[in-house]
Amino acid sequence: MPVIDILLSDFLKLSEVDKLSYIKDYALLYAQQFSRKDLDDYCILADKCRALFKSTEGAQKLAGLLSNRIALNFFVQPSSRTFLSFSAAQAILGMKRMSLRDLNISSISKGESLEDSIRTFLSYVDLVVMRHFDNDAAAIAFWVAAKAARRVSIGDEERPIPIISGGSGNLHHPTQALLDIYTLGKSFNESGGIDGKKIMLVGDLKRGRTVRSLSYLMKNYNNVELIFAAPDQFQMKDDIIKFLDSHKIPYSKIDSIRDAIDSVDAIYMTRVQDEWDKVEKGGHPPTNDNVIFKKEYLKLMKPTACLLHPLPKRDEIEIEVDYADDPRVVYWRQERNGMWMRVAIIATIFQCDQKILDS
Amino acid sequence: MPVIDILLSDFLKLSEVDKLSYIKDYALLYAQQFSRKDLDDYCILADKCRALFKSTEGAQKLAGLLSNRIALNFFVQPSSRTFLSFSAAQAILGMKRMSLRDLNISSISKGESLEDSIRTFLSYVDLVVMRHFDNDAAAIAFWVAAKAARRVSIGDEERPIPIISGGSGNLHHPTQALLDIYTLGKSFNESGGIDGKKIMLVGDLKRGRTVRSLSYLMKNYNNVELIFAAPDQFQMKDDIIKFLDSHKIPYSKIDSIRDAIDSVDAIYMTRVQDEWDKVEKGGHPPTNDNVIFKKEYLKLMKPTACLLHPLPKRDEIEIEVDYADDPRVVYWRQERNGMWMRVAIIATIFQCDQKILDS
Amino acid sequence: MPVIDILLSDFLKLSEVDKLSYIKDYALLYAQQFSRKDLDDYCILADKCRALFKSTEGAQKLAGLLSNRIALNFFVQPSSRTFLSFSAAQAILGMKRMSLRDLNISSISKGESLEDSIRTFLSYVDLVVMRHFDNDAAAIAFWVAAKAARRVSIGDEERPIPIISGGSGNLHHPTQALLDIYTLGKSFNESGGIDGKKIMLVGDLKRGRTVRSLSYLMKNYNNVELIFAAPDQFQMKDDIIKFLDSHKIPYSKIDSIRDAIDSVDAIYMTRVQDEWDKVEKGGHPPTNDNVIFKKEYLKLMKPTACLLHPLPKRDEIEIEVDYADDPRVVYWRQERNGMWMRVAIIATIFQCDQKILDS
Repeated sequence: MPVIDILLSDFLKLSEVDKLSYIKDYALLYAQQFSRKDLDDYCILADKCRALFKSTEGAQKLAGLLSNRIALNFFVQPSSRTFLSFSAAQAILGMKRMSLRDLNISSISKGESLEDSIRTFLSYVDLVVMRHFDNDAAAIAFWVAAKAARRVSIGDEERPIPIISGGSGNLHHPTQALLDIYTLGKSFNESGGIDGKKIMLVGDLKRGRTVRSLSYLMKNYNNVELIFAAPDQFQMKDDIIKFLDSHKIPYSKIDSIRDAIDSVDAIYMTRVQDEWDKVEKGGHPPTNDNVIFKKEYLKLMKPTACLLHPLPKRDEIEIEVDYADDPRVVYWRQERNGMWMRVAIIATIFQCDQKILDS
Repeated sequence: MPVIDILLSDFLKLSEVDKLSYIKDYALLYAQQFSRKDLDDYCILADKCRALFKSTEGAQKLAGLLSNRIALNFFVQPSSRTFLSFSAAQAILGMKRMSLRDLNISSISKGESLEDSIRTFLSYVDLVVMRHFDNDAAAIAFWVAAKAARRVSIGDEERPIPIISGGSGNLHHPTQALLDIYTLGKSFNESGGIDGKKIMLVGDLKRGRTVRSLSYLMKNYNNVELIFAAPDQFQMKDDIIKFLDSHKIPYSKIDSIRDAIDSVDAIYMTRVQDEWDKVEKGGHPPTNDNVIFKKEYLKLMKPTACLLHPLPKRDEIEIEVDYADDPRVVYWRQERNGMWMRVAIIATIFQCDQKILDS
Repeated sequence: MPVIDILLSDFLKLSEVDKLSYIKDYALLYAQQFSRKDLDDYCILADKCRALFKSTEGAQKLAGLLSNRIALNFFVQPSSRTFLSFSAAQAILGMKRMSLRDLNISSISKGESLEDSIRTFLSYVDLVVMRHFDNDAAAIAFWVAAKAARRVSIGDEERPIPIISGGSGNLHHPTQALLDIYTLGKSFNESGGIDGKKIMLVGDLKRGRTVRSLSYLMKNYNNVELIFAAPDQFQMKDDIIKFLDSHKIPYSKIDSIRDAIDSVDAIYMTRVQDEWDKVEKGGHPPTNDNVIFKKEYLKLMKPTACLLHPLPKRDEIEIEVDYADDPRVVYWRQERNGMWMRVAIIATIFQCDQKILDS
């Protein structure tokens, strides 16, 4: 039975890598948790679930896997995609679902601490998926789960109730990174996979947790090159740059999409995350023209390239691109991929991956 | 495979009737979509579902019909009845259900367009039921569904994800009109059905989307006469008047319930829709006495007449009427009818109506 | 068929005991409803459900019991524990679940009365669990259910749709009292049960609905003694004192935990309920030191004593107590007990208790 013998305050002071020695595979908090094999396995499992679901018997089989388990989706930041796709994934696996999306209707409004709230959730449910504005919230939740007396039976073990981060402050969004990998893999299906590819990340790289989590995953691929296209004030933070240096992943910084549009294999667009700013009344300021994807760029893209976006978007992709019927525009498919990846993630954490693969 | 080859802006400019040539039976947006046969079929199916549900086996049969489908109830205006009855109807048919009721917890709060939000929902779910303050919202959703790559298998076809309007701005509420027809039909069960009946619509006819949708449906019945009882400022709008003229449906305008209470076969009450006004602090102004249904009117009503209200109500029906135990007061039964009608609507859109009728 | 032949206004004027002659076992509103046998039966049933759920077949059996029933959780005050545990309990029994937690998204925002809203819910669901700030809300709901034409089949009867109070104003929280009894019973399992025990209630006894409901239940046990530890302004109200006098239950009032910590068999902590005050900006004032449970008190407690709290807590228990790994600290287990007690409550109200016991 896992025990965590460290104070919460000390646990939170650890680096993410050091936290991993406690987290192991009990929870899913950081993109750094995944090996190449993990990533490949997740993608294979997501594909398998998707295929199974097409038949009535396959769908019923999936729905029988976790029908006695209860999931809580605790999302206190706005979310459409992550929330709905996790909820759909849980439904596909037959889980009972509950959600808590507003601190004002919870006991936190009566002065309860986050630790107590989490421990309370753990009294009733078998899985917590959470999105929180606090960078430490998911780590706190894991620590509470590891300390709490209540365990959940998974395989032959009594384990801490699993915690999955669905976005933590402005630092981490590991399941988004997994679905991005899944989408890139599918797009490069006939061109040898992600190894050797040139990937341009565009927009607000400084505060975009998705591009940060995706960058971490790049250590698992050979000869990948990253291009960061962003205005100076939104360029990638130094901690990621250091990470890339230490893993010898080549990268370059540019300030306009146009400088690399014709040579990259993937373009990953992001939105200016101005929810972290005080947005002026009158709305969001327009995105810098250099990091807007225009319809005409479709002509410049390599025929085998793909265009991703974690969504939601605003004006950083011209609206004509949405309905251009260009198969290289994959961000809507990326959403659906996200649901299947989340089916795979939950199935893996409850160790029913092998049962699915054997079907 | 259905394709929509028209720009959204052009689609929205079309009249409702012209929109119908695109919408066909892929979505349910306007009361004008229904033929007499449709209405009769819906009512028969609703009755059949209700009867089936009474036995455990019947209930299980219904719950097996759509157990692999996911429904989203996207309601961004307040709703109790429509929301709960759609949710209950989906549960009865075994659907997995998700809801989104607050734009602040969705990505629309990050600047996402309604089109993008809808397209996102379509990535995860097999049915969207929606209520929105924007008159065009449901039409936009249909257009996005028709354009989106993701389809849902219904019968032998790959179809756009169905959109059902649960109330659109102050213009349409087609499923309410269906449940009103169902309720009228049941009330007139022993007096030959809706044909030939005199129906008085009372209250805020100008902004009440239910009376508008119900008026459209009258074209399907023979020799129906409508009486509009409303103060001048709330009288029925010209577009409906024109519609009635063009279908040769007789109508008259009066300003007091009393003027017709003893001669009509149905009285359909409505509430002053002052959520469209700036309501003064201190609450809702009282309803004009002429359009309040008083307990004493029960004595004036024909013994075979019925009293409907789409609800919620405020002061336009005296509270003593609620618990009068008068079988002609059918508005509470009308609610329950609504749930069964919505079971029929969803079953029909997913083409499992025949399966139910064959049970 | 039960009929209620009394006006709502008259019903609300009755004492709780007099209301019980109408309520019978149709609804669960007041702790005064329970006999000793009821309490024992609930605890046995909760234990049985918990044991059954451990096996896959047992869990499936439970999930089959109420799979054609729909529950509504109507909670318009903040709640984490009661809401989540009722929802989990319903899921375990296979119920379809709906929730309404915000009056702004309901038709009450359009001026609908609580009576009408409740009657509307009753059109769609088979069970209403409700928490409301109005002391009378649950009684109103019961009255409406008793009056409404729609009934639910339970056993061989057509009964009013059951109403369960999940907390009513600052007066009642009967299901909390049941789970407290369940927790006390389990803690005293090897020391002869609750009879003869000395129980100290600590904190805001004046406005804490849980300690009030628990006090009512004490009439069912022999030789129980209550100790009320609270500052003067938060001491137990006279109506409870009168109740204890009339049932000859001994009690004493003290103002500090320390005065009795070494002699009591159970300590029941509560939070200052300052949501009923106008809380100053800048947060909650600190709790009076005399009614804070300190880690050092664990050394003073009897080895067989137990420490309960209905939760949420703030500063009235030192945080070190939470993770002290002391088996006498039972408030986290108390939460989980609450879920199983609520399974038992719902199973009993739908008369499937015997079916469970026979498994």
